[in-house]
Amino acid sequence: MNLILFDTSDIRADATVDATGVQARHLVTVLKVTKDQQVRIGVVDGPLGVGTVTAVGDGRVTMDCTFEAESPERPRVDLLLALPRPKVMRRLWAQLSALGVGQIILTNASKVERDYFDTHLLEADGYRPLLLEGLQQARDTRMPVVSVHKQFRKLIEADLDGLFPKGRRIVAHPDGEATIAHTLGHSTERVLLAVGPEGGWNDFELALLRTHGFTPVTMGPRTLTTTTACIALLTLVHYQR
Amino acid sequence: MNLILFDTSDIRADATVDATGVQARHLVTVLKVTKDQQVRIGVVDGPLGVGTVTAVGDGRVTMDCTFEAESPERPRVDLLLALPRPKVMRRLWAQLSALGVGQIILTNASKVERDYFDTHLLEADGYRPLLLEGLQQARDTRMPVVSVHKQFRKLIEADLDGLFPKGRRIVAHPDGEATIAHTLGHSTERVLLAVGPEGGWNDFELALLRTHGFTPVTMGPRTLTTTTACIALLTLVHYQR
Repeated sequence: MNLILFDTSDIRADATVDATGVQARHLVTVLKVTKDQQVRIGVVDGPLGVGTVTAVGDGRVTMDCTFEAESPERPRVDLLLALPRPKVMRRLWAQLSALGVGQIILTNASKVERDYFDTHLLEADGYRPLLLEGLQQARDTRMPVVSVHKQFRKLIEADLDGLFPKGRRIVAHPDGEATIAHTLGHSTERVLLAVGPEGGWNDFELALLRTHGFTPVTMGPRTLTTTTACIALLTLVHYQR
Repeated sequence: MNLILFDTSDIRADATVDATGVQARHLVTVLKVTKDQQVRIGVVDGPLGVGTVTAVGDGRVTMDCTFEAESPERPRVDLLLALPRPKVMRRLWAQLSALGVGQIILTNASKVERDYFDTHLLEADGYRPLLLEGLQQARDTRMPVVSVHKQFRKLIEADLDGLFPKGRRIVAHPDGEATIAHTLGHSTERVLLAVGPEGGWNDFELALLRTHGFTPVTMGPRTLTTTTACIALLTLVHYQR
């Protein structure tokens, strides 16, 4: 935890805040904070800042807060991901928010098992703590916006222009025509990166994505798992800008 | 499993081979192979090839093999990694071999707990199946060479020139002077990438690395976990060449 993130509603009108639960334990047992010590804090979807410890005890750390004037920029990369199996998705949430994504659009696909959708991890209560963990790791405050879509075709044909109205759309594919660097060039537009299921998109899905503006890009001959591919591709897109 | 890898000793003189165990189960239950079907095979540290199924049954799939003339090139990136905790390292093995590394040099560091070394996963019997899994995922045959070092200083001062005699040495560090792209340019030399423990290298370690030719490179302001950082950095180094 390289940052302690609070919700706006946690901060009192006099600019004090109480860390409790996991955050208090981290402050007390890992950082071993004492009175007057300063720690990095932030507000979800708000600014970074500094907390000055005023009291420690009773499973609670009280701090005075000061915040920067500007909030961090929203990451300029969005991810459209064919839902991986729950065990993989559980580990991916924090990695995605740590790398920085503006939104996470999860979708069904022909090679996604229907029962992957039956998990608490696709509800805000389930994934939000994991996204928070990644933000606190990476010192970011921008909570990715998450949406879950059980109908791939409806998502692409009807909903996607609302979710991602403007920017470059790319889809990772072994037969992609060009590298990410070549495709994105020095553009600073938002990028929507589509990553398929372990077995790949099928021909219909790939054709539909192409029809809706996605350029296939390749990462080379290696076939990677969803987790590794997501991290590698997001890294390359970020690095390119 | 996008490739079935065998050891040279598994291949009989008449160019036939038996897949057993996990590999046979994968062929039978996932690929549902039948007689005369062809599947991608390879020899560890040898060539890729094609297996033609001649018999299925008794937990065994027998194939006739043909192999390419050339073996895949050894990945031109090596990794020097401060040993992460066993749970993290367990998941990392397959990801590293899938991304492609020539050797994995694991080391102690001041922020590595001593008991991280007490795991079966640092013995060949423990890690080799996991490395194999990554190679089979990525369709590579080149098994990374692994060495484990409990004394960081001795590793850097005495052993490293033997392990990595020639090439570029870089160390990932938040205060790094330049990006990977800038540091590596279009060089095609081997690269040794050093990745520190979760809490970072300490000043002594970083100074020792610099004295021994490592250039600090930065990935930007985000602090990533070991797993995410390794995948992101290896991706960037590979992509740069």
